[in-house]
Parts: sequence; C-alpha cells; structure tokens
Amino acid sequence: MDSVLESLIIENDKKILLLVMDGLGGLPMTPDGLTELETAKTPALDALAKNAECGLHIPIDYGIAPGSAPGHLALFGYNPHNYPIGRGVVAAMGIGFPMKPGDVAARLNFATRDDAGNITDRRAGRIPTEQCVKLCEVLRKVNIPGVEVSVRPVKDYRACVVFRGQGLSDHVSDTDTQKTGVPPLDPEPTSEKGKKTAEVAKEFVTQALALLKDLHPANAVLMRGFAELPHIPSMRDRYKLKPAAVAVYPDYKGVSRLVGMDVIEDLPDLESEIPALNKIWKDHNFFFMHHKYTDSKGEDGDFQAKVAEIEKVDKIIPKLLALKPDVMIVTGDHSTPAKMKAHSSHPVPFLIRAECVRPDGLAGFGERECGKGAWGIVPTTKLIQLALAYSDKVLKFGA
Amino acid sequence: MDSVLESLIIENDKKILLLVMDGLGGLPMTPDGLTELETAKTPALDALAKNAECGLHIPIDYGIAPGSAPGHLALFGYNPHNYPIGRGVVAAMGIGFPMKPGDVAARLNFATRDDAGNITDRRAGRIPTEQCVKLCEVLRKVNIPGVEVSVRPVKDYRACVVFRGQGLSDHVSDTDTQKTGVPPLDPEPTSEKGKKTAEVAKEFVTQALALLKDLHPANAVLMRGFAELPHIPSMRDRYKLKPAAVAVYPDYKGVSRLVGMDVIEDLPDLESEIPALNKIWKDHNFFFMHHKYTDSKGEDGDFQAKVAEIEKVDKIIPKLLALKPDVMIVTGDHSTPAKMKAHSSHPVPFLIRAECVRPDGLAGFGERECGKGAWGIVPTTKLIQLALAYSDKVLKFGA
Repeated sequence: MDSVLESLIIENDKKILLLVMDGLGGLPMTPDGLTELETAKTPALDALAKNAECGLHIPIDYGIAPGSAPGHLALFGYNPHNYPIGRGVVAAMGIGFPMKPGDVAARLNFATRDDAGNITDRRAGRIPTEQCVKLCEVLRKVNIPGVEVSVRPVKDYRACVVFRGQGLSDHVSDTDTQKTGVPPLDPEPTSEKGKKTAEVAKEFVTQALALLKDLHPANAVLMRGFAELPHIPSMRDRYKLKPAAVAVYPDYKGVSRLVGMDVIEDLPDLESEIPALNKIWKDHNFFFMHHKYTDSKGEDGDFQAKVAEIEKVDKIIPKLLALKPDVMIVTGDHSTPAKMKAHSSHPVPFLIRAECVRPDGLAGFGERECGKGAWGIVPTTKLIQLALAYSDKVLKFGA
Repeated sequence: MDSVLESLIIENDKKILLLVMDGLGGLPMTPDGLTELETAKTPALDALAKNAECGLHIPIDYGIAPGSAPGHLALFGYNPHNYPIGRGVVAAMGIGFPMKPGDVAARLNFATRDDAGNITDRRAGRIPTEQCVKLCEVLRKVNIPGVEVSVRPVKDYRACVVFRGQGLSDHVSDTDTQKTGVPPLDPEPTSEKGKKTAEVAKEFVTQALALLKDLHPANAVLMRGFAELPHIPSMRDRYKLKPAAVAVYPDYKGVSRLVGMDVIEDLPDLESEIPALNKIWKDHNFFFMHHKYTDSKGEDGDFQAKVAEIEKVDKIIPKLLALKPDVMIVTGDHSTPAKMKAHSSHPVPFLIRAECVRPDGLAGFGERECGKGAWGIVPTTKLIQLALAYSDKVLKFGA
C-alpha cells in the first residue's frame, strides 16, 4: 500500500502541524472517574475537537504498548515493525551523534557498585549532566585496537557509546539486569554475528571499570540497547515534505533526525517552541511539535500533574492556530495512564482539523469523546495519510 | 481472505440490489453545516437507514480519493490495487468495444489547435456527439501497417482508439498536457516495452492531424490513458452471481462489463432504469444501479444541485423496494463534496438492508449518522461480502 500512496503524493506549500503530547492517553483512577485528558480544563482543545474529525489510534497493535521511538515512527507514517530502532540508536541520534551504517550504539548508564561488584544504584545517585560530561571525558582513554570508541553524555546519569569498525553488529545482549544487589551481566553475542562486538563491549566495560574505579558514585557502567542504524527513507523522499521538529528532549530529536527532519536545537521548554516554529514556518511544510511532560507525569503516577501538563499545552493552542496551519493534528504517541505509571496499549485520542473535514461535533477532546468520532479506531500510521490528503498533497487513484 | 470466501459461496436466487449514487459522500460548506446528503430531504432513505445496518467505507485507503473505475471495482469486491484499469480501457469497455488481450486502448479528445500547433481548446468547443461520430468516420482512413486501428465515438468531444497487433503495450505516455497555449506532447515509451506502441501512436497522430486539418474546431486529437485489458475474474466465476448493470453513463457500463455483468443498453435516464430492472429481475440475482449526477453536481461545486439529485433518487426508492430485493445496499463509490469540486478521500456512507440485520436505528441516512453505525469504517471491498452473506450465499467456515 505504502508505495501506492507514495506514487500519488505531490508537493505543495500547505502546512501540516502535528502536536504530540507524549503519553497523552490516560485512564480514570476509578471506574466512574475521568481520565487525565477528560479532567483537564481544555477550552481551546475542546473548541478544536468540536470542528474536527476525531478518533482513537493504535500505534503497534491491539494490546501492545509502544516505546517512544516506535510510537513516534508510527505517527510519522512508518510501520514500526518494518523499522526496528534500538535504544542505542535513539540515544545517539538524540544528541546529534553522526552515526554511520555499520556503527553500533548502546545506551550507557553510569552506576554505583560495591566492593563485591554488585550494582547498588543503577543511576549513580542521579548525578547531574555536568558530572556526566566529565565522566565521558574520562572514558575517552578507553583504547580498543581496530575500533573507534565514542562516549557521549546524554542527560543526568545517561550517556551513550558508539563503536565504529569492521564486522560489528548489534546482536549483543544488555549488561544491565535492571536490578540492584547483583553484578552486571557480561555482554553476550545473541548470534554468531555478534561475537566480535560482544568482545569489544566486554573490553570496553573492563577498561571503563578501571578508569572509574575511584569516581564513586559513578564507578560502574551499564550497557543496554545495542543497535545499528536502520535504513529509514526520509520524509522528504517518502512524502515530498519539508519536515522540521521542535522538541526539547534528545530522544525525540533523535527519532526526528532518523526520518530526515530538520531539528531545531537548544529549545529549553514548551514556550520556546513557539518562536522556533514561527522562525521556520516559511521554509517547511510539516512541523512536529513535542511536549514530554505529559508522559513523565504519567510515569510518575501523578494524575493531577499530568492534568496540569495538558492544561499547559491547551494554553498555547491559540498561538499555534495563529500560525494558520492548513492541517493540525493533536494527539499522543501512546497512552501513559497515571494509574499504571507506565506506557500502556490503550488507544490514543486524536483530532484532525482542516478546511475540508466532516466535523464530528464532539463535546470536547477526550478519550471517550474521540471514541465517538467517525474514524473510530485507526492504525496510527494512517494519520499522516489523512494529513497529506487534507493538505491536498495526494492525487486521485485511477481513472 | 478472498479465496476462503470464494470457496464458501453457494448459488441461490435471492436478489441483491446495489444502488450507487456516484460521488455520494459530501462535506458541510461551513464547520457547523450539513453535508449534501444530510441536507437532502430523503424520507425513503431515512426510513431505510433506520431499519438497516449502516457505516462508512473507504475504497482505496485512508487519504486516497478514488477514480470512478477503482471506486466501482471496490464496490464489486475487487481490490483496486490488484486490478489497475487504465482510462483507455474504461472508455473502450464503456462503449461496448470488444477489446481482446493484447489490445491497447487510449482516450481520445478532439481538440482545437492554432496555426502554430498550440492547443487552444482541449474539447474542440464541446462539439456534439453526432459530430464526434462523423470525425471518427474520417479517422477510419488512418492506415498503419501491421496494426488494426479502431476509432470509436464516446460522447461529445470524447472518443477512444484501440490498437490491435503484435507486441503492443500500454507503456506509453499521454499526449494531452491538460493545458492550452502549448502543443501536445509526443507519445513516448515509458519503458522498453512501450517503444513500438509509442511509434504507432505517433504515426496515428500524424495521420489524424492531416485528415482533420480543415475540420476546425476539431482539427487535432489528444491521447491519454493508454491501457491494456486487465485480466479480471468475472463476478459469475468469483461469486456465482448472475449480475446485471443498469447505468446511463458509458464508463460505468465499461467497468460492469469488465467484471462480467450483463449490461442493459440504451437507458437514457434514472427513470428508465426502473422498467429495465423489472425486465431483467427474474433472470439475475445481482443488480448494479448507477446514478451519475450526484457526482457531476459535486464536481460542479453546486451544493444545492447535488442535494436535488439525491432527492431525485430518494423518490424512486419505493419503486425499488417494490421489487422486493432480498438485500439492498445504498451507497456511493467515493465522495465528491461540492465544497471541493472533486473526488475526495472522505469515507462514503452506506446502508445495508436485509431480512436478517441488526438495525442501527439511526435518525436518517447521512455521513455523520452512518458514522455512528455499528460497522464503523470498513474497506469498500467488504460490502459485497455482507451482501452475499445476507442473501444466504455463504456457507459456514469450518466444522
């Protein structure tokens, strides 16, 4: 199907704005209660929903909670099954590391271990980013013949490592057990192809432990999500779009880069994304705008804080409408109900506003209202197709 | 799935009536307005909808507006992706030209060109059909060694040409630029396979220009939609149906012929389709009835005229019910909102009425009401499966 749609796409200057509140979908805390979105006072979103087409979307499949990368890939129209993205790649792309095909990246946690070699804190006391930067400098001394090793800070206790060399592969298992009180695992090949990389990773850990020995609480490293760069066709090639991302968090910038978006740097917060949008508005026609904290508060299990984050986004809607996007989609990449403190598989509400729509006339923007929308439940990957169609970028199929 | 369904189909005499209002789906002109169908006074259709199962259907995919041929193929249960039909074939089949495998057909417009060879009118002043018939006679003098050339009138300024001979292919580009003030293009091969046919087409144009030289305003021809006959299994073979079409417009008769329907000729208007149906009722069990002008008025952007066409159809519903069809589906092949003056990708409302249904009890027949129906949004190709099932033509699957 993809190729049929792609063959029908034409270029024009009409603007598509995709506003993603991370983990937007929620749950009521009690059977007769309201979800976070239903609880939030969202006059702007409610007004939008009334004149929009609405529905719910499923990023992966019924019953499957998506990670952030596949959730976003689906929103950008890429079937996550066809484009598996390892955590290491997301981390590396997120900080703008120029990965090349054949490179293998892994997420690195600085951690604390005791004299017996058991991990006592998987986050090294949540050291600040400045400390992380210094520790990455220390690890520059790691020297593995035939392999170029790059260690880069991400945020707080999180870093990433990229191995570059001949014959590397991401068929290597995590060293992070996700537990404390036990030693980390050795990196092991998960297939014949991963043997060399597992040895490289083991050598890296050995040298790192020596270098970090006296740097308590960051005297250990944990590796996970070994990953190679997947080949993903860019949104420019695939949709003839000029796409740009305004996002604060590195991981979302990483996914955006993977699909060929121009990524605006140094945005400290949601407010800063608005002038950034204004600045790039003329030269692009697809804008991905991301708000992280709806997800964070959901993961914290803080229902009211998630409600407050949604209300924060509602307040900026008028500023976004002032840009006069031809198509505007408001949605999430998955559900993160405060009740579950985790990503969940529940369908995600969306609204799509454009000149030529058949408004569902819903009472407001919420999970149950969107469930009454004419679109019902659609695969997430279909949303971009609607956005392209409603911005007049898709030709008629057949005579 | 197709082959599973087909293996379960049995023959019986129960009648299925598929009433298609072309381009039925619409849009409100303002966000709080009603669509054409919602605006139309349709007491008969509303009464049907109340006791029917309802929903919306998507002929090709989310965001893709279908042409007429693929829209109808989908209604007949054929996935349009698997059966691409070029415009030339639709035209040739529409006028009952007996195309054979290997033939290549193209749409022909009579047009006007100036002394410099630029096209000044792509429709030759919309000459009447009688004139078109005479011009086709003139073009019988075209003589291309080794190729049998048939030129046939379609309607007004529109004709079609069929080339028959060895080694022909439809890999040839249009000569029609769809613009005036420029000369037509040469027909070019779009692959190695199309080389011979492109030369044949070029020779055809050269001879045609000489023959038409003094016949202003029809002193030029434009060719588009080079197409070979696709192999499409007939509805008889596939569904064990005895299908018939009552349609006024040639293109729809063409598509009906492609799927093996008996096509009733010389029907001047909607009213004439009723006695025609009566006449063939006994000997068939699938009836495709087509009304064109809902689409035409939508393409004209004439909201009220489209409303009036829908109301015209509503008035004949009692006559159709008098035939006592066992299953009746009322729908469109795509949306043609007056607001957009074009085919659009918006889902198309449908109702299916039969003895054994679970009525949705909707307030009337309209896009938003159908959106509330239990079927939600279904691929268009599924409708025929429901029609077969509700007329007791599908055996149980498995023990």
